[in-house]
Amino acid sequence: MRTRLSPAKRKEQLLDLGVRLLSTRSFQEISVDLLADEAGISRGLLYHYFGGLVQFQEAVIRRAAEDLMERTDLPEIADPIERLGAAIAAYVDFVDHNLAGYLSLVRGAKSGNAVMSEIYDSARAALTDRILAAAPDLIPDTAPHRLLVRGWQAMAEELVIVWKTEPTEMTRAELLSLLVSALPALIGIS
Amino acid sequence: MRTRLSPAKRKEQLLDLGVRLLSTRSFQEISVDLLADEAGISRGLLYHYFGGLVQFQEAVIRRAAEDLMERTDLPEIADPIERLGAAIAAYVDFVDHNLAGYLSLVRGAKSGNAVMSEIYDSARAALTDRILAAAPDLIPDTAPHRLLVRGWQAMAEELVIVWKTEPTEMTRAELLSLLVSALPALIGIS
Repeated sequence: MRTRLSPAKRKEQLLDLGVRLLSTRSFQEISVDLLADEAGISRGLLYHYFGGLVQFQEAVIRRAAEDLMERTDLPEIADPIERLGAAIAAYVDFVDHNLAGYLSLVRGAKSGNAVMSEIYDSARAALTDRILAAAPDLIPDTAPHRLLVRGWQAMAEELVIVWKTEPTEMTRAELLSLLVSALPALIGIS
Repeated sequence: MRTRLSPAKRKEQLLDLGVRLLSTRSFQEISVDLLADEAGISRGLLYHYFGGLVQFQEAVIRRAAEDLMERTDLPEIADPIERLGAAIAAYVDFVDHNLAGYLSLVRGAKSGNAVMSEIYDSARAALTDRILAAAPDLIPDTAPHRLLVRGWQAMAEELVIVWKTEPTEMTRAELLSLLVSALPALIGIS
């Protein structure tokens, strides 16, 4: 049974649905037919709210990136390593629960789609800032540290995707421990 | 003036040309018209040698991956860190001199093109094996080390691309030193 919602709420609901669909599908698989089946919305309504399917897909990816940023927000923990650890755990869990969507974002960004690249690069840059803000005593914000944090982010992304997509005996706790320890180890070399 | 070559030599020459074109162009930009302008070959001849433009582009990417493997072959240096350093320097120089081609390979692989992914993954896996073979005393070949080496490769790729494509004060020597030091630092945490 569908209830009558305000346009703003309806739009929010559609974006939430899109993000949910991305947990098991790539964004290219989000079609008008699928949306019609899942949410009972017509092509006309989709165009009305978003201007078209491509714009809807982009809005969904943008929402997914916002969700990632929200969930990896630095918690109020005094110890910087523990604080980083909690944010990294949230990142790993986000990829764990939204694998197809996350891979879509990565692939979309790397394949040269300008909007996807912009969303991905912005999220990456915001996460870099966040890591540097999390532990200013451990990782002073200098150009070499910033570069190393970006390298670490590429490594973290690779390892989480390998952990999720290939057979492994590594537990979530072991992966987290590896990622958390890698950051000060890398900062130590600069 | 064009000289008459055997079909095998002509094919080699076309692949070399393709790789050279990739130093300043993405593989999508390698068109039949461009090849006609640069090498005087017709669409018919391209089809005759490779079966089509897409197959030619794939053969060029495969050749570029082979070149990368050849140039990063471990040199005969006794000290394992120096040996790794020389191979890493060769990798950085390869990306430095073939940026567009290297980015094409990365983008092609990440965008979900199956042939590109296969070429990229094979080259990456061969480089992982090579790093593990280079310094068996420093990096014993265990599952966690293998994973860390893969993470380091993702980091190295990110840092070289950032170094090449963004304004930076970092010298080639500083980048190399960072990459070479990062590997034992990461291995140390496992």
